[in-house]
Parts: sequence; C-alpha cells; structure tokens
Amino acid sequence: MERIYISELKENIGKNVKIAGFIQIIRDQGSIKFLIIRDVSGIVQVVVLKKNAEAMETAATLSHESVIEVEGLLKEEAQAPGGFEVSAEKITILSHADPELPIPVFEKGQEETDQSIRMDWRWIDLRKPKNILVFRIWTLMESAFREYWLGNNYIEIHSPKLIGAPSESGAEVFEVKYFDREAYLAQSPQFYKQMAMAAGFEKVFEVGPVFRAEPSFTSRHATEFVGYDAEISYINSHEDIMKEEEKMLEFVIKNIKEKYDDEIKEVFGKEVILPKLPFPRISIKKAKEVLGGLGVSGERGGDLSSEEEKKISEHIKKEEGHEFVFVTDYPASHRPFYHMRNENDPSVTKSFDLLWNGLEVTTGAQREHRYEILVSQAKEKGMKLEMIQFYLNFFKYGCPPHGGMGMGPSRMMMQLLGLENVREAMFLYRGVNRLFP
Amino acid sequence: MERIYISELKENIGKNVKIAGFIQIIRDQGSIKFLIIRDVSGIVQVVVLKKNAEAMETAATLSHESVIEVEGLLKEEAQAPGGFEVSAEKITILSHADPELPIPVFEKGQEETDQSIRMDWRWIDLRKPKNILVFRIWTLMESAFREYWLGNNYIEIHSPKLIGAPSESGAEVFEVKYFDREAYLAQSPQFYKQMAMAAGFEKVFEVGPVFRAEPSFTSRHATEFVGYDAEISYINSHEDIMKEEEKMLEFVIKNIKEKYDDEIKEVFGKEVILPKLPFPRISIKKAKEVLGGLGVSGERGGDLSSEEEKKISEHIKKEEGHEFVFVTDYPASHRPFYHMRNENDPSVTKSFDLLWNGLEVTTGAQREHRYEILVSQAKEKGMKLEMIQFYLNFFKYGCPPHGGMGMGPSRMMMQLLGLENVREAMFLYRGVNRLFP
Repeated sequence: MERIYISELKENIGKNVKIAGFIQIIRDQGSIKFLIIRDVSGIVQVVVLKKNAEAMETAATLSHESVIEVEGLLKEEAQAPGGFEVSAEKITILSHADPELPIPVFEKGQEETDQSIRMDWRWIDLRKPKNILVFRIWTLMESAFREYWLGNNYIEIHSPKLIGAPSESGAEVFEVKYFDREAYLAQSPQFYKQMAMAAGFEKVFEVGPVFRAEPSFTSRHATEFVGYDAEISYINSHEDIMKEEEKMLEFVIKNIKEKYDDEIKEVFGKEVILPKLPFPRISIKKAKEVLGGLGVSGERGGDLSSEEEKKISEHIKKEEGHEFVFVTDYPASHRPFYHMRNENDPSVTKSFDLLWNGLEVTTGAQREHRYEILVSQAKEKGMKLEMIQFYLNFFKYGCPPHGGMGMGPSRMMMQLLGLENVREAMFLYRGVNRLFP
Repeated sequence: MERIYISELKENIGKNVKIAGFIQIIRDQGSIKFLIIRDVSGIVQVVVLKKNAEAMETAATLSHESVIEVEGLLKEEAQAPGGFEVSAEKITILSHADPELPIPVFEKGQEETDQSIRMDWRWIDLRKPKNILVFRIWTLMESAFREYWLGNNYIEIHSPKLIGAPSESGAEVFEVKYFDREAYLAQSPQFYKQMAMAAGFEKVFEVGPVFRAEPSFTSRHATEFVGYDAEISYINSHEDIMKEEEKMLEFVIKNIKEKYDDEIKEVFGKEVILPKLPFPRISIKKAKEVLGGLGVSGERGGDLSSEEEKKISEHIKKEEGHEFVFVTDYPASHRPFYHMRNENDPSVTKSFDLLWNGLEVTTGAQREHRYEILVSQAKEKGMKLEMIQFYLNFFKYGCPPHGGMGMGPSRMMMQLLGLENVREAMFLYRGVNRLFP
C-alpha cells in the first residue's frame, strides 16, 4: 500500500490507508490508546484497540516524536480532529526518539523556549507547523520572484563566492585559506552581476549566499544570508530600477496573498497588504527634514539609523497609507564608489534604499559604467586600485549603462509575517557565536 | 522613444526606432558607413549616411565593442542581415571601448583563443552568442527543475555554507577565518538537507554553491560549483530516489528540447534526446564484469575511473540505446559513512551514481537514519565523532527514513550541449590557479 499525506485522508474515509509521521501526542487509556500523528501536511488521530494485539504491543513502546508508519481503516469519529481517525491494524516504528527531548515541539504555557536554545536544536524547533509554514511561504516567494524574472527576459547567473579580492571594501570580509594563498568570501555578487552587464546579458538575477564578517548581534543581521540580486542594462537612472522593483514586489506579494492570506492571518496574525504602485519616494535629505520635524534626531548624517527607518516608515504609513517607501539620493559620502553620481549635484548618488514597515530590505543604484569616472571615484574613496583592477577592467571594453538592486529575502519574510527576529526566517542562522548545528 | 530589442525590429519596418547594443562590425565606405549592432536578442545593420552629419561625425569616432544607442528609420534593405536596416539619425555613445581588445569576440580563422586566456577576459568571451545561449539554456534548465520540485511538494531550503565542522571528511575542505576561530566551507548541503528530514519537511531541494579544496585540473572539476540537491523522506530504498530523478530529468530535458532543440542543433551540433523511462540500471559489480569483458581494466576496485565511466556508458548506449545509466550498489568501502547498507549484504550500500554519456552527473543514496547504526558506521570509517556529533544528533529524536541526490548542473549542461570542458558551462570558473576575475 502507498503511504498518503494526512491531508489526503478526508477523501478516503471507509478505506484502508497507510500514513506516516511523527507522534505528537500519546494518550493511554489502558485498553485503548490514542496517538496524534503529524506529517508535513497535517495531523490525524490514530486509535489502537486491544483486539489488534500486535499494534497494541508496538504502541506500548512508543515515545513522543518517534516516527511511525500506520496502516488501518479510516473511519468517521466525531471526537477526533477533522472528524475521522485511523484504527491501527499495523504500526511500524521507523525511528525511535529519545524520550528526553531537549526542547518541546509544542510549548506548554505562554513562554517560548529561549531563542538561542531553540537554535541549538533548530531541527526540532522547525517541526512546529508555523515554522514549516515560513519555509513553504519562502518557497512560494522565491518562485514568484523567479516567475517575474523569467517572464521579463532575465538570465540567471551563479557567480563565484570565492573571490581573489574583497568585493566591497577590505572590512567585514571573511578570509579563506585557498591552497597556498588567500581568497575571500563574496560580500555580494555586485561585481559579477555588473560583469554580466559588460558581457551583454542585459538583465540578470542571482539567488545565493552573501557573507559579512560583521560582529553584529541585532535582530536583523547575520554573517551569512541569502541575497536576491538583479541588474539591468540600458536604464536612464535609478528610477528605472525602483520601477522594476515595485513591479516585482507587487507580483510577489500578490502571489503570496492569493495562496497564503488566510494562513498568514491565522498563524501570524498579520494581514498581507497588496502594495499600490507607485511606492512613495522621499529623498534622504527630505526624510531628514521630516524626521527633524518629528523630533527624531539621527545619529548618522547621510544615512538612516534603525530608529529613523522606523519613524520615517511610520510617517509614510500615516500620511500615505503605504508599507513601503523608497529613500533616495543618498550622499556620495555614504555610498560605495561604484554608485553613479547625480549629473547636477555630484555630492549626491543615484541610489535608493527600500524600507518595508521600518526595515531596509533593498539597496539599489545606477552604477558608474564609465571607466575614467569610476577610477576617479574609487581613488576618492581611498580604494586600492590594484585590488579592484580586475573589476575596473569590466568597463574598459564597452559596457552599457546599468543599475540594480540587492534584496534581503529573510528580512522580507520577517516583515511579511511580522517575525521579531530575522533568525526565525532563516533555515539555520549564522552569527558571530553561531556555527552549529 | 523607448529602446526596443533588435528581435522586435521586424514588426516595426517603416517606423522610427531606438535600439542599443555593442558594435560588432564597422564598415567604412567613406561617405557611407555600415555598423552591425548586437544586443542580447540579435544583430542588425545600421547605415550612416553623409546627410546625417551629426550621426556621421559620431560614427567616425566609434570603436569595436563600444556600446551605442541608435535612433532612426527602420527600412527594408535586401542586402542587410534579416532584410532590413536602421538608417541612423542619431547615435549616442554610451560606453567607449578601448580599441585594443584583449581577445576577439569573434574569432578569425579556425582556432579559438586559448581557454585560459579567454577565462582571463571572461566577460568579453561571454559576449559570443553561443556563450550567452549556454546561460539562457541554464536559466530554463534550472527553472524546469524548480517547476518539477514545486509541482511535487518540495520545500526550498538555503542551508549555510559556513559550517563549524567539515561536512564530509577532513580532506578537501576550505578553512575560513571566522572571528576568533575556524569555520569551513560546506562541501555539500548533505548534512543540512538531512536535517530538514529530521525537521519533518519530507521533501526539500536546494540550489547553491558547493566548495571542494581539491587540487584537480581536469575538464570536469572546479573548486566551487553549483549543486542541485534534493532529499526525500519515507522512501523504501535508493530505487525510489532513482525513480524520482528519472522523472525530474525527463521533465527538464523535455522542457529544454521544446524550447531550444533547433538552436542547440544549430549552435552546438548536438541533438537533444528525450530519455526513455526507466533509465538502465547496472550494479557496480556487474559493470566491472562487463568492463572486464570489454578488456577495460579499472584502476579503482569499488568505483569507476573516468575511462570506465565512458566505456560503460558506450556499452549501454550500444546495447540499450540510452544516454543515461544508473550504476548502483557501490561497496561500503567506497561510500561515505552515512550511506545505508544493504540489509542482506552489509558490504554493499544502497547507493547509485548517474552517468550521462560517460560522465557522472549525480550521486545518490538512501541514508542511514538509525542513530546507533549511523554511529557505528561513522566509527568504522574512522570519523571523529565529536566533530560530527551535531549531525548525529539529528537522528536521536525521530527522523523518517530518507534518501536523496546531489546533481551537478554544470556537468549536465556540458553533456547536454556537448561542451568539452565544464568551465565553458560556468559563468566564472574557479580552480586552484583561478580566482580572477
């Protein structure tokens, strides 16, 4: 007999079925035992009766979270969750769980186990249906982004993570022992998606890990996380990139809302709001003025502190009813050397960040594609030219004007579902003190 | 005016159009100049006439591979490729290319520039339409795999590449300086996709980089490459994994054939053959007998040499007309400790490799999910248990029986298109002596 998903049982009442899963609950009433079995699709009650002596014998040895296979008749039972139960004729233990679970799958009482302990035993933590749901939604989110990209002529690239020189600046980069020399872990695919522009690919996307040797302990940082990157040729300014991102996000959120609206509301208490286009835009200069007016004084002149990000988002939400806001035109002093400067005011870059409900989820810009200007901007920033010559060369032999963005999908999941910490949106979090499991 | 793709021109004859791209050819006939412009979609001829003085003046300064934008009337011209040309009214130089190109985009004569030099200037090499085509096909290949996975209830995971202990064995692993300690780069997502099984995800896939500190210089190896990984719970044996992979590959190759059959034939001279199910299977023991009969003596007892892989594939192709063959039941001595052993003959693992036209493109197996047996197999292999205790723990608190496979998409591209070296199927190759660009 083929094993079927628990979610498929309702079409099989009155039939013999085979299911498999983890034992969530064991209720022993002597001559009758009840089990709640959980698979990836749901839960079901199994009843074990004395007359099925072998099943009864096996049932007596079961522990919570052991994995079993159950064959038996599926019959209606008003008392059982879903209104039916499986009367076990045969129980096979597939995996015996140590009865001393280090953390509970289902918390008793109000307090959840401390996050750091849950992360130690992440695979048990992930058994919670709400955690599996996070990754189901992620799967759909990524698939929707890709559907957008594929439908719009993007080519997928997988750029190397092992690189010969730091991709952004010397700081916050991990060093790798590479045979008899040093390599570095890419802090972003920035240089390489630009290489694809110089190769004439015109539109590319990449999904892959990025690495930051940043000793940061906040709820929004990690030393390794997934980046979604896109780069587009023949743009006129960063405005074209913002327009593209709006369309992407509208498409992605629409897909998520269509499939998971109810579940997200039920499990996370969060409504998925389809964003209206265009998203609000505000220059960093104007944002600072607004924040000043609100009595919020930022610590950093050319950027927004995390407090300021929250406040400006709240302001936009109040004024324009929008969860998103593009903050644009950051000063050159606060942006990398490869951001293009404004034609009329070279102290300003053609750049943006996207905030979603107070959290930065994207950084984007038009890039400087003109070799001489790029070199002079690199010098101005004190870059060691010999370290980035391989990159500068991309612009020597013809390269279309281009721009792009780097998005943080784990932060997007965090804002979409209202999670308090980005770690909850990652399969396995990596931080300064976290390399296991 | 909006720039349009060159491939869209044919619907716009008689209209003013704007195109942009690289200058592939410049033919100067004094009072008239011809340019061939290439964008990601194709090529078109641009004619510059003396009467358009400004355009003529700009045209005089152009170099090969510079990027320009051209506006003008699209008119029929029997002599031009495609039967039409753009009569330039305005030419804008978007990026001036150094006239001394380090490698030609289009080779003159028969010999191609040496691969290693082409790799130095990979972004220029990638401008060749056949190279862009490789990545278009890759984009479709990956999208087809994902469509299969999503249609079959797989959950996508992104597991960490920074890990606290080597994932397979101590050899061939890159070390990373991780703040005040050592980390390692994952040689595969093996341990973590198994963790997803212990978490009850049931079916997962992952696409991501894998790292091998292997000083290998062959045409099929790299120190970093993309892996496609899948893992499935509640299987009965590795046969279930092989069945799943067959279906995947049938689906993927069908998709590629539908869209790119003609182009692949034209550009790579290769026919895409839709494989029949089931794929042939042969045990490694039987394969060795066959090879012995063919007079091919292998160097390694429990595995196939690359010569043997070729010969056994040729044999299967001849006998069964099939490009694929599963080689199964490798001896335990040649497989990692986590492969499950055969119930009747524990010297044999429940494992397989998949060969495609003589090249290994997949390794798969049922995994040992029973804690005590796994520990004893790890000890037998001389593993340091304290290094892998975090992994062994995945099997202590309930874990379904499971198995999976790791596939090499760049090798698949190589076999699909008949490329001679896996480097040609990678956006940027990484090897012992190759960290740039």
